[in-house]
Amino acid sequence: MKTYFDCLPCFLNQALRAARIATGDEGKIKEVLDEVGSMLKDIPLESSPPESGRLIYRKVSEITGNWDPFREIKDKSTKKAMSLYPSLKSHVKKSNDRLLTAIRIAIAGNVIDFGPGRAFDIEKDTDKTLKKEFAICDYNKFKDCLDKADEILYLGDNAGECVFDRILIEEMKKPVIYVVRNTPVINDATYEDAVKAGIDKVATILSSGTDAPGTVLKTCSLEFKNIYKNSKFIISKGQGNYEALSNERCAIFFLLTVKCRVITNDIGAKEGDIILKGINIGSSPI
Amino acid sequence: MKTYFDCLPCFLNQALRAARIATGDEGKIKEVLDEVGSMLKDIPLESSPPESGRLIYRKVSEITGNWDPFREIKDKSTKKAMSLYPSLKSHVKKSNDRLLTAIRIAIAGNVIDFGPGRAFDIEKDTDKTLKKEFAICDYNKFKDCLDKADEILYLGDNAGECVFDRILIEEMKKPVIYVVRNTPVINDATYEDAVKAGIDKVATILSSGTDAPGTVLKTCSLEFKNIYKNSKFIISKGQGNYEALSNERCAIFFLLTVKCRVITNDIGAKEGDIILKGINIGSSPI
Repeated sequence: MKTYFDCLPCFLNQALRAARIATGDEGKIKEVLDEVGSMLKDIPLESSPPESGRLIYRKVSEITGNWDPFREIKDKSTKKAMSLYPSLKSHVKKSNDRLLTAIRIAIAGNVIDFGPGRAFDIEKDTDKTLKKEFAICDYNKFKDCLDKADEILYLGDNAGECVFDRILIEEMKKPVIYVVRNTPVINDATYEDAVKAGIDKVATILSSGTDAPGTVLKTCSLEFKNIYKNSKFIISKGQGNYEALSNERCAIFFLLTVKCRVITNDIGAKEGDIILKGINIGSSPI
Repeated sequence: MKTYFDCLPCFLNQALRAARIATGDEGKIKEVLDEVGSMLKDIPLESSPPESGRLIYRKVSEITGNWDPFREIKDKSTKKAMSLYPSLKSHVKKSNDRLLTAIRIAIAGNVIDFGPGRAFDIEKDTDKTLKKEFAICDYNKFKDCLDKADEILYLGDNAGECVFDRILIEEMKKPVIYVVRNTPVINDATYEDAVKAGIDKVATILSSGTDAPGTVLKTCSLEFKNIYKNSKFIISKGQGNYEALSNERCAIFFLLTVKCRVITNDIGAKEGDIILKGINIGSSPI
């Protein structure tokens, strides 16, 4: 997805929120606003939002000196999500279609996102999502691909959300490589967060190598890119990964909750909608 | 009121919205974003938001070449408000406290604001406001001052809202000077808009001389400033006027609907709250 005009003020808002979490020093927060405001004119609109988001969040860390401002928030999210794990598992067990329920749960977890600045309540929003109709639902294609898949490349998104992903991984009953960011950025899941969610018990955890808030391929490691291009079945969680990969030619299933107006226009859905959207399904990867 | 950090991304959002209304030329819209983004670092936080807003909206007009982008929107608002006038008048007539109802109506009209980017529906929001409790209500002080006043200086805010102001002016039964912006800025009322609302039939219309989206005294005409400093009873409508005048030493009654988070913190109320707040009441004007 390209960068839209609306992304530019949003970057500045994101920088402000992140700076406030990173430091209590008002002078540094002002410096972040000044620097990021001046950076906006150099953002190429043809690049994806997480590609530029990466530079914005790096600038916040450079100025505030805090390279993991969301650490405490991430740990709280994981703890909260872990406390919901038993009831979510029981919800899957009781459902008519366990796989679809697990997909719904994985998407519900995508609400735990400190990027777009939307208020959320993990428990209440999960309940709502479990009752929601999909705005886009390529479930049959998903099932077909899953049946044929030897291995799944699962691109994770946020800390806490990993717990919800684990439930889907457990239902898919296939080997999974679970991909995390290399370096902390917003509340995106790193290796540490995936382990705290118990992902290491159900999948192989792999860093994409990026410090962007999305799987921006040009910033990923060679190792990851090799695995990515040979993957037959890719699950991509969240907006950041959607923004980074929606124009790619690989077969990818995007699982996300729509959290900003720019995505609503791009994907053709409303804010708050839940999405299971496959692209390039049936075609060969590059 | 000073400029808060949150005002800076908001300025950029306002510039984007205004630019889109002013032109369909994407290159010019991008130029607005680039220029305004770079301007943000030079905004003095000790100045009030409309003082900087003035520079932002001028930049939008300079770049797009459109010096009254909200003209059509303003005319539509006035037309809609005029269509509600008879039912609002009858609402006043039927009420137990005509003056308080007219104040409520004047505040309800303050929802017609294209600055903060909140969606609104004039008719529905008016109905809601008429049933709302005040978050701050200095009504007794207001009545006292009105009783003693020989003349009222009424600082208008937006086009369309003028029609609602007219109802309050008609109920106060005292001579009123109704103040408008000198030059179009956002959907703020100018002389033309006040006349279209029939204000000329019930008050003397006066330009403040400013092109800011608020009565920023240092940008006002000498004529206006003389009248202002000799006024014993000032009514100030809306957020922009509140932001510009909340630290002044004159006796002023602020009538507004709270439409952004920054104001909620400054005034001590919630978004959507309605306010009748007097400052410096009983003290002499400067």
